[in-house]
Amino acid sequence: MNRRNFIEKSSKATLGIAFAPEVLSSSFNFQNKTLKIGIIGTGLRGQNHISILSKRSDVEITCFADPDKYMLSQAQKILTQHNRPPAKEYKKGVDDYMTLLKSEPLDAVIIATPWDFHIPQALAAIDAGVIPGVEVCGARTIEECWELVRKSEDKNIPVMVLENVCYRRDILAIHNMVKKGLFGEILHCQGGYMHDLRGVKFNDGTPKSGKGIKFGSEGFSESKWRTQHSIDRNGDIYPTHGLGPIANMIDINRGNRLTALSSIASKARGLHKYIVEIGGKDCPQAQIKFKLGDIVTTQLQSANGETIVLTHNTNNSRPYNIGFKVQGTDGIWQENWYGKFKDGQIFIESLSDGKEMWQNPENLLTEYDHPLWKKHYNDAAGAGHGGMDFFVINAFVESIKRKVPFPLDVYDLATWYAITPLSEKSIAEGGQVQLIPDFTNGKWQTRKNTFGQSDEF
Amino acid sequence: MNRRNFIEKSSKATLGIAFAPEVLSSSFNFQNKTLKIGIIGTGLRGQNHISILSKRSDVEITCFADPDKYMLSQAQKILTQHNRPPAKEYKKGVDDYMTLLKSEPLDAVIIATPWDFHIPQALAAIDAGVIPGVEVCGARTIEECWELVRKSEDKNIPVMVLENVCYRRDILAIHNMVKKGLFGEILHCQGGYMHDLRGVKFNDGTPKSGKGIKFGSEGFSESKWRTQHSIDRNGDIYPTHGLGPIANMIDINRGNRLTALSSIASKARGLHKYIVEIGGKDCPQAQIKFKLGDIVTTQLQSANGETIVLTHNTNNSRPYNIGFKVQGTDGIWQENWYGKFKDGQIFIESLSDGKEMWQNPENLLTEYDHPLWKKHYNDAAGAGHGGMDFFVINAFVESIKRKVPFPLDVYDLATWYAITPLSEKSIAEGGQVQLIPDFTNGKWQTRKNTFGQSDEF
Repeated sequence: MNRRNFIEKSSKATLGIAFAPEVLSSSFNFQNKTLKIGIIGTGLRGQNHISILSKRSDVEITCFADPDKYMLSQAQKILTQHNRPPAKEYKKGVDDYMTLLKSEPLDAVIIATPWDFHIPQALAAIDAGVIPGVEVCGARTIEECWELVRKSEDKNIPVMVLENVCYRRDILAIHNMVKKGLFGEILHCQGGYMHDLRGVKFNDGTPKSGKGIKFGSEGFSESKWRTQHSIDRNGDIYPTHGLGPIANMIDINRGNRLTALSSIASKARGLHKYIVEIGGKDCPQAQIKFKLGDIVTTQLQSANGETIVLTHNTNNSRPYNIGFKVQGTDGIWQENWYGKFKDGQIFIESLSDGKEMWQNPENLLTEYDHPLWKKHYNDAAGAGHGGMDFFVINAFVESIKRKVPFPLDVYDLATWYAITPLSEKSIAEGGQVQLIPDFTNGKWQTRKNTFGQSDEF
Repeated sequence: MNRRNFIEKSSKATLGIAFAPEVLSSSFNFQNKTLKIGIIGTGLRGQNHISILSKRSDVEITCFADPDKYMLSQAQKILTQHNRPPAKEYKKGVDDYMTLLKSEPLDAVIIATPWDFHIPQALAAIDAGVIPGVEVCGARTIEECWELVRKSEDKNIPVMVLENVCYRRDILAIHNMVKKGLFGEILHCQGGYMHDLRGVKFNDGTPKSGKGIKFGSEGFSESKWRTQHSIDRNGDIYPTHGLGPIANMIDINRGNRLTALSSIASKARGLHKYIVEIGGKDCPQAQIKFKLGDIVTTQLQSANGETIVLTHNTNNSRPYNIGFKVQGTDGIWQENWYGKFKDGQIFIESLSDGKEMWQNPENLLTEYDHPLWKKHYNDAAGAGHGGMDFFVINAFVESIKRKVPFPLDVYDLATWYAITPLSEKSIAEGGQVQLIPDFTNGKWQTRKNTFGQSDEF
C-alpha cells in the first residue's frame, strides 16, 4: 500500500497563519505549515484535546461539531484562553458533523463523541478526504471494524486511534525495557480498565455533576449515553486502555496478531446497589436490569504464543487500576497503582543477585524513561491524565506533518475495538472461544512496529 | 448419606497407648483414644506431615510405605527425634502400599506420593476400610475423580484433601472477613500457583539437591517424577493452592458450584532455557520438547455468578506468588506477597472514608485473625509453610476423632483435581469451554459450608 502521497492529495490546508499561540519548546520540528483540525464532539474529552492542540503553533482549530450548546461554549472558552479565534460551530443536531466535513477545508478531525458515533464519523471523515483521529471505545459490530479498514485502504486515508494509556510514562518505560530485552521473550501480559465509574454513569444532571442517579436524557455529560451501554451489553465494553500498551509491546499487527479470545462475566450487582443506596429501592431506576457483569474477564491468544488477560470493572467502589502485568522469560513487572511501590513491583532475573524477590521499580523506570518523555517532559506538563494525553495528540499531529504512518493505526483500531463485540458474543455463548479477525489481511507478517521508536512522536 | 457411624465400623484402632510424645497445648480435645495412622509416601512432603503428627499425643504413626530407602530412613529419623517407636516399613516396590493397607490395623493414611498414585491409593485405602488424607495435585482423568467419589459414597468412607494453603494465616483472615460480610457479595476471585520450580524439576541427583539438570531416574526427590508432567501435559497441573481457598470463600459444593472453565497456555520457554543455561545447547536434555506452557491461565464460572481466574506458572525465574484477589461489591483484597504492604493491599468501602485508595491490610488481618490461628498459634509454630501445615493435619485428625465431616472432602478433591484434565482438554481444543461435572450430584444445593467455622479445626 502506498500512502505516502495521501496528505498532499487530501490536504486542503493553506500555509500557516500565525495567531500568536503559546510558544512550544524547541524540540518541535516545525515545517512552516499549520494543520487545520476540526473537533467532532466537544464534551469533556474533546475539550481536553482542544486544550492540548491550543498550545501548538502547528495547528489551527477551525471548527466544532456538537449538538450540546453548553459543551460548545466551554470549548470556545478554551480557545479564548489560548488567544485563539473562535471555532465555527456545527450544532444542528447529531448529524451536523456531516455539514462540517463537507464545508470545512480540513487536514484532520478529532472524533471524541459518544462511542456509537466513532466509526460512522470516521467513515464520513475519510469520505470527505479528512484524516480522523478517533477516541477509544469498543465497536458495536465486527462488520463496522471491517468497513473502516476497507474504506481507509480504498481511499488511502489513514486513521489513528487515540489510545492515550500507550503513552503513560511508566508504561513507556516498561515498553522501552521490553524492547531492550530486559524481560527476555515476552510470555504473558495483563491489563484492563478497573475504574469506579458509578459517579460518571450517574449524576445529578447538572454541570457540577454532583452525586445522583440521573442518566440518559436527564443526566449530565457521559451519563447521557454511556450508562445505556451497561444496560444493553455484557462484554468488555472498554478494552483499549488495557490492550493497547500490551499490543505495542508484543507487536500485534506487526509481526504478531491476536488470534482468539474467550470472555466471562460476573454477576451484575454494583450499579443497582449504587442506585438503591442513593435513591432507595423504590425509585424507578432501581427497577433497571443491568446486563453488564461487574467484572468481565477476557483471555486472549496470539500467533506468537503470548497470552493476555484483560479485565473490565467499572460498576464497583474500588481504587483505580489498570492492572498491568508484563512477564517474560527473564522478568516480570506488575503495576500496583497507588501501592507503596510507586508504579508497581518488578523482578528482573539479571538484576536479582539470585534472590527471587520483588524490587521497587522506581530506579529502573527512571533509567529507562522513554526518550519521548525525556524530550517532551515540559511539553507534556499539565496535559490530561498525567501528561500522557499530550503524547497521543503529538503523535497524531506529527505523523500527519511528516507524512509517515500512524504508530497506532486503523488495523489497531479495528483489532482493539473488535474485542467488544467478540467478548459479548463469547459471554452470550457461555464463554466459547471467538476467533479474532486478521484485519491486516496477512500484512501483519511483514509490517514493522513503529510505536515508540524515536523521541519525536 | 449417613456417615455418622463410619468410624466405629471401619476403625480397627485400640485405645491409646502412651509412648511419651511431646505434650500438646491444652486447647486440644483429647478423647482417650489415639488414631493409628500410616504414611504412604515418605518423601519430603510425607516427612513434613510425620513431623506434625509426631507432636500429637492423639496419633500413632505405625507404618510407612515407600520404595525409596533413603526417604524411609529420613522419615524414621523424625520419629526417633520425637521419641516415637519406628514405623513398620513397606518398601517392596511401588505397590507395597497394598500390603500395608491389608496388613495394618489403621484408622487413616496420609497419601503423599507422586501425583499419579494419589487416587489409586485413596481407592485402595477405602477398599481396606481406611480413611485417606490425600495430598494436593491434579487428576489424570475426570473418570478417576468420579471413581473416587463413588467409592467413597458406596463404602461410606470419607476422604480429605490436604489443601494447606486454605489455612494460610492471611487467607483465613480474609476468609473470616468474607464470611462476616466486609467484602459484600463476592463477585470475582483470582489465585494460582506461581512458583519457580526449575530447581525442583531439575537438580544434581543428590540429596543435597544442588543445581543441575538431572531428573527422572537420575534426579533426586520430586524431579524423579514431577518433571515428566511438564514434558507430557499442557494444562493447569497444580490447581488446588489457588482454587481451594477461593472455593471455601464462595461455598463451592456447598450452596454453589463450579460450572465451566476455559484455559489457555503461553509458549513453553522457561525449562529449555534453564537447561541450556546450565548444560549448554548440546546436552541431551536440550533436545526435550516441553509441552507445558510457561503460563497457563484458566477462567472459571460458578452457579452463583462469581468468576475466577487461576494461573499456573512454574517454569520461570520469578518471586513466589499465589496472586490472590478477592473482590466483592464492597471491597477488594489483592495479595502482594513480599511486596511492601505485608500481605497485599486492601480496599473496604465502608472503611475508606470516601477515598478510593488502597490501604495496608495489616491492621485488618490482625483484627480478623481467624479463631483457628488465635487458638493454635503456638501449636502451629514451626510447622511447615509458615504454620499452615499444622492446621490441615489438625483438621484431618480432629474430624476423624470427632466423627464429623471433613471440611475439605471428597467432592472438593474431585472438583479441584478435575481442573487439570479439563484445562488440558480446553487448551488442546484452542481454549474451548469445558463443563465442570457436579460431583455432588445435586447435593451442593443443600450441603452446608463447615470450613473454618470454629476455632477447633
